Amino acid sequence: MSKITTAILSISLLLAGGSALAQQAAMEQKPMMDQKMAMPGPVDRTKILAAPGVFGNFSTYKVRPDYYKLSAAERKGAADEVMAVVDKHKDKVIVDAYLTRGFKAQSDYFLRVHAYDMAATQAFLIDFRATRFGMYSDVTENLVGMTKPLNYISKDKSPELNAGLSSATYMGDAPRYAFMIPVKKNAEWWNLSDAQRLKEMETHTIPTLGNLVNVKRKLYHSTGLDDTDFITYFETADLGAFNNLLLALAKVPENKYHVRWGNPTVMGTIQTFENVVKTLSMGH
Amino acid sequence: MSKITTAILSISLLLAGGSALAQQAAMEQKPMMDQKMAMPGPVDRTKILAAPGVFGNFSTYKVRPDYYKLSAAERKGAADEVMAVVDKHKDKVIVDAYLTRGFKAQSDYFLRVHAYDMAATQAFLIDFRATRFGMYSDVTENLVGMTKPLNYISKDKSPELNAGLSSATYMGDAPRYAFMIPVKKNAEWWNLSDAQRLKEMETHTIPTLGNLVNVKRKLYHSTGLDDTDFITYFETADLGAFNNLLLALAKVPENKYHVRWGNPTVMGTIQTFENVVKTLSMGH
Amino acid sequence: MSKITTAILSISLLLAGGSALAQQAAMEQKPMMDQKMAMPGPVDRTKILAAPGVFGNFSTYKVRPDYYKLSAAERKGAADEVMAVVDKHKDKVIVDAYLTRGFKAQSDYFLRVHAYDMAATQAFLIDFRATRFGMYSDVTENLVGMTKPLNYISKDKSPELNAGLSSATYMGDAPRYAFMIPVKKNAEWWNLSDAQRLKEMETHTIPTLGNLVNVKRKLYHSTGLDDTDFITYFETADLGAFNNLLLALAKVPENKYHVRWGNPTVMGTIQTFENVVKTLSMGH
Amino acid sequence: MSKITTAILSISLLLAGGSALAQQAAMEQKPMMDQKMAMPGPVDRTKILAAPGVFGNFSTYKVRPDYYKLSAAERKGAADEVMAVVDKHKDKVIVDAYLTRGFKAQSDYFLRVHAYDMAATQAFLIDFRATRFGMYSDVTENLVGMTKPLNYISKDKSPELNAGLSSATYMGDAPRYAFMIPVKKNAEWWNLSDAQRLKEMETHTIPTLGNLVNVKRKLYHSTGLDDTDFITYFETADLGAFNNLLLALAKVPENKYHVRWGNPTVMGTIQTFENVVKTLSMGH
Amino acid sequence: MSKITTAILSISLLLAGGSALAQQAAMEQKPMMDQKMAMPGPVDRTKILAAPGVFGNFSTYKVRPDYYKLSAAERKGAADEVMAVVDKHKDKVIVDAYLTRGFKAQSDYFLRVHAYDMAATQAFLIDFRATRFGMYSDVTENLVGMTKPLNYISKDKSPELNAGLSSATYMGDAPRYAFMIPVKKNAEWWNLSDAQRLKEMETHTIPTLGNLVNVKRKLYHSTGLDDTDFITYFETADLGAFNNLLLALAKVPENKYHVRWGNPTVMGTIQTFENVVKTLSMGH
Repeated sequence: MSKITTAILSISLLLAGGSALAQQAAMEQKPMMDQKMAMPGPVDRTKILAAPGVFGNFSTYKVRPDYYKLSAAERKGAADEVMAVVDKHKDKVIVDAYLTRGFKAQSDYFLRVHAYDMAATQAFLIDFRATRFGMYSDVTENLVGMTKPLNYISKDKSPELNAGLSSATYMGDAPRYAFMIPVKKNAEWWNLSDAQRLKEMETHTIPTLGNLVNVKRKLYHSTGLDDTDFITYFETADLGAFNNLLLALAKVPENKYHVRWGNPTVMGTIQTFENVVKTLSMGH
Repeated sequence: MSKITTAILSISLLLAGGSALAQQAAMEQKPMMDQKMAMPGPVDRTKILAAPGVFGNFSTYKVRPDYYKLSAAERKGAADEVMAVVDKHKDKVIVDAYLTRGFKAQSDYFLRVHAYDMAATQAFLIDFRATRFGMYSDVTENLVGMTKPLNYISKDKSPELNAGLSSATYMGDAPRYAFMIPVKKNAEWWNLSDAQRLKEMETHTIPTLGNLVNVKRKLYHSTGLDDTDFITYFETADLGAFNNLLLALAKVPENKYHVRWGNPTVMGTIQTFENVVKTLSMGH
Repeated sequence: MSKITTAILSISLLLAGGSALAQQAAMEQKPMMDQKMAMPGPVDRTKILAAPGVFGNFSTYKVRPDYYKLSAAERKGAADEVMAVVDKHKDKVIVDAYLTRGFKAQSDYFLRVHAYDMAATQAFLIDFRATRFGMYSDVTENLVGMTKPLNYISKDKSPELNAGLSSATYMGDAPRYAFMIPVKKNAEWWNLSDAQRLKEMETHTIPTLGNLVNVKRKLYHSTGLDDTDFITYFETADLGAFNNLLLALAKVPENKYHVRWGNPTVMGTIQTFENVVKTLSMGH
Repeated sequence: MSKITTAILSISLLLAGGSALAQQAAMEQKPMMDQKMAMPGPVDRTKILAAPGVFGNFSTYKVRPDYYKLSAAERKGAADEVMAVVDKHKDKVIVDAYLTRGFKAQSDYFLRVHAYDMAATQAFLIDFRATRFGMYSDVTENLVGMTKPLNYISKDKSPELNAGLSSATYMGDAPRYAFMIPVKKNAEWWNLSDAQRLKEMETHTIPTLGNLVNVKRKLYHSTGLDDTDFITYFETADLGAFNNLLLALAKVPENKYHVRWGNPTVMGTIQTFENVVKTLSMGH
Repeated sequence: MSKITTAILSISLLLAGGSALAQQAAMEQKPMMDQKMAMPGPVDRTKILAAPGVFGNFSTYKVRPDYYKLSAAERKGAADEVMAVVDKHKDKVIVDAYLTRGFKAQSDYFLRVHAYDMAATQAFLIDFRATRFGMYSDVTENLVGMTKPLNYISKDKSPELNAGLSSATYMGDAPRYAFMIPVKKNAEWWNLSDAQRLKEMETHTIPTLGNLVNVKRKLYHSTGLDDTDFITYFETADLGAFNNLLLALAKVPENKYHVRWGNPTVMGTIQTFENVVKTLSMGH
């Protein structure tokens, strides 16, 4: 019961401290998140891809068959119309596009959208869906997540591995392939102590260090935002190295806590958005 | 066998007491529920959102592609037609609307309808579906539930936590996002004693108190009414705080009793119904 | 091995006894089942709803969007055409109809058909599907079962509870809502001894006695006939009482043996078939 | 390791023996299977239904709604066209047809095709699908299997039960209903010793002997050929007896090894193919 | 902790060694993989089917009903158009085609494409989908994998069995049937030690040796590339032998580690691509 008393006490203090204190506490956990920032020009790609508190939106699409019943002329203008929408939103979001046709049955292409404000992502995607190409696309999957500072392998908690992660740089050819793989852990995982989860994540991280030379990766947190805990994103030029990396991750005990790993595994070639639209607009 | 005898005895007494007694017993458990109340004017929003015995109906929709083959003029009138239906039913139901396109693959928008009488909700939704916009919408999910007095963290059973819940007030910006997350517990959970479930719910509640500053929530009971035990509904302006809240809930033992938590997790921006219809009617 | 010998022996005897004996044995287990009965007039509703050996057929439907592209005049005649089919088959089947639109995503309405002969049910449903309304309806679920004498809480096996069941009468308002909930038990359940299952069913029955005042119910057996063991059907005017009843059933050990309980839970308002067709034929 | 050596040794011998030996070994296990047999006339129904090494193909179909937009005249010719295809293939395959509309949501009818050569079945079904009726039918399930000699309850292994099986003859009315129920066993089952599985199958068989008077059955083996281990097929005039038979099978320990039993359970009335087509071609 | 230190050390060395070293290490694991090779003429079929580091792409398709509404003349040209695309890509990919209609509900045909570069496979499939036949085909499944040197039963690790595998040659008739069966193992499997997995794979391999006379097989690795760990591909003229082989594989302990084995099991007759298109273009 004293545990409850303490919790209520700390809540009371929090409430007593009023909104300013609460705001500050929240700020510490979510730097730059969902704030209306002054955005004088296009989003800085390098910066937004490195920052915590950024929203990542992954959506997969399948072009409906009746798109190909439009005249070739009508389909020809599709890419320009899409790029105009990208341009209109360039101060709020950045968009990456990938061609999945020929790899996956559930989609023909997928988009990765980053923004500091989730509503800006929605505004962009609604405008995209109102283009001719967007109208003829069925959304087949959509997952949302956000970036956060390193949880486990941080400078404080695991200094040696953190140094390893920092010094391991991608040295392969320019990546040609991207993967999006959702990950959900079971209740047993989340009920481990912080120390136990840290230990498992260290065991998870060790075999991956060697692969950072050949595979880039990025992590998004989704608990509560979607039916997954994480969205893992990878880029590589070397599919064999990627297969080996994922095998290594299968062989650590952390894997036993997975209830979702993939489903879907989305694989695409990295393309410009314009090229994705043009490629999928072909056909007589 | 004496257990059976007692049960039958009490049934016999109940039956002996006749319908008046039975009615009274039922009344104690469901204040204001399903009663034809005198309703001289529009439903009082504040009152219905606070009352137990109210029915909540959550439905998600996807606009069919052929809607966009209607002329822009035809689509332009859609919002007015929908709002007329809302107005027609305003003495019986209140409706909240949310835009999900760009967040979720399974829907473009979702509705939350409250009524004292479930049949009134059905009457409204049938009229809505007969509008042009409703006709071009496919229902992709529909969950029903009802509000009830606090089960576990009540003044009697858990006075300290109940006080904590009562004093924790939302202090964030006006919420921009809403979430609908179904929850189903397994047979092991329901076979725990009341005392054991109370203990688990206390452990569940403690870490959430701090988040009530940033996240509003509301609970609906659905056992038997639908293939879920609860519908949890959240509003927030701070997606990071919401993610932290759900992580905290994942880390308590109660999580081990979940057989459904999400599936779907529905996320939308809070909008007027009129705006939802107008936004989804765009496109050339 | 003696067990096998005995079994073969009894089979041999059965075979020796010939078809007359076999028929008689079968008759004891299935009174009035699948027999071509003299049916001079309409099926007696009260009788068929009380008899064992009756077939129950539950089917859910969704009206296809293109139905609403028919002219209002064409749709206006739909109800009459359907009712003519009901009339044509009234000597063989009775039909109940329920409106589910606004409650469930998977259906707009559902039908419950009773007949002494399953082929009669098929004949009716085929004729119904050949009407205009039936043609524009997609079947989204269909479950079949049959009524049988009480298995566990019978006069012989559990006299006290049987008396309780018999004396507990529905005393609520005229039911407005109906539920159809499939139930499937796992192999562990079926491998319990008869005595163990009886004990579990007694524990299951006790907490339900009090609810019979507010909720009517009916049971259909489906093992082998469909991918469910039972179809449970309920009627009530009091959704809160129904929620409480199902919660009580969740809290007994029998719940641990469920592999399916719902999926779908179908909820509808009780209507005349004519009204269901008319309501779903609205829309400009 | 000696186990490996022995295995390799026996393989070597097999290989040394060359193709003739291998052929002979194979022949012993699959009499008459997939051989191009001299077939001067129509397939002998009685013979093919009793022989091991015969392929059984079960496919379920749903008639697409647009079929009913064809003129009644066009639909009228459908049955003749189908029967011509049946006639064309009558030297290679036999076809049974069943009407499922009104019983199951997933299909309107199903076909059972037998052939000594699986490719002959494919040739027939491709021709059937090229008829007007076949073109307007969507295949919703398709399972393939083959007949084999008795595995467990054979004269050698279980002589008493084998005798019981042999002497138990169907004595009911002409069957009106047929069921197709897939069965898949888990890894634990397949890792039991032969003796253990024999024991379980004896326990499984004993309670079924009594039902052979009322229910006919036939078994197809599918491991590797499809996502099921067995296809069980039943015919009966007595649905109550069938329900009792399946309940008896649920109550033996073998049931604990099932990972699939049904899903779907397909139930139909036994009809001529011509009648199935004619019945489903009705409607104005 | 020393484990971590060692790992980081070896990473550091790897990084110190720079890109040349990393390249070399990678090369050892993936001979000929994804490299832009000089390709003066058509892909060498025998060579690509034997090489490790080759990508295999399996896609299943269903012809949409509206294909048959095209005039017979339009459909007649479909095969030529498809074969022109095959010819255009013959320096980069080889294609095998299989007819599945009549065997499986989920598809009418499936393709197996091999290439040294996965992007070349995508380029081919995109061109195929832009043909008339491809446009009217819905992709219903798509799995990707790659060939690798033998993992377990290698000359070093299991010399006797390796010899057995090498000497066991297919001696049956020309295969008429092909199967594609995905395999996914659980976390327990991947967390076994290498020695334990080797032992299980030896037990798995022994009973299969005898079947290599009647069944050809080929293995693709997919971990991370898709939601499966392996794609197993078989060819046979003897379906009974194939059934026996898969039964033997079900009976070894390795089967207990499967979380996916099939789902779908795809079965087709081996055909030329031209014949597949022609056969599926029939129908009045």
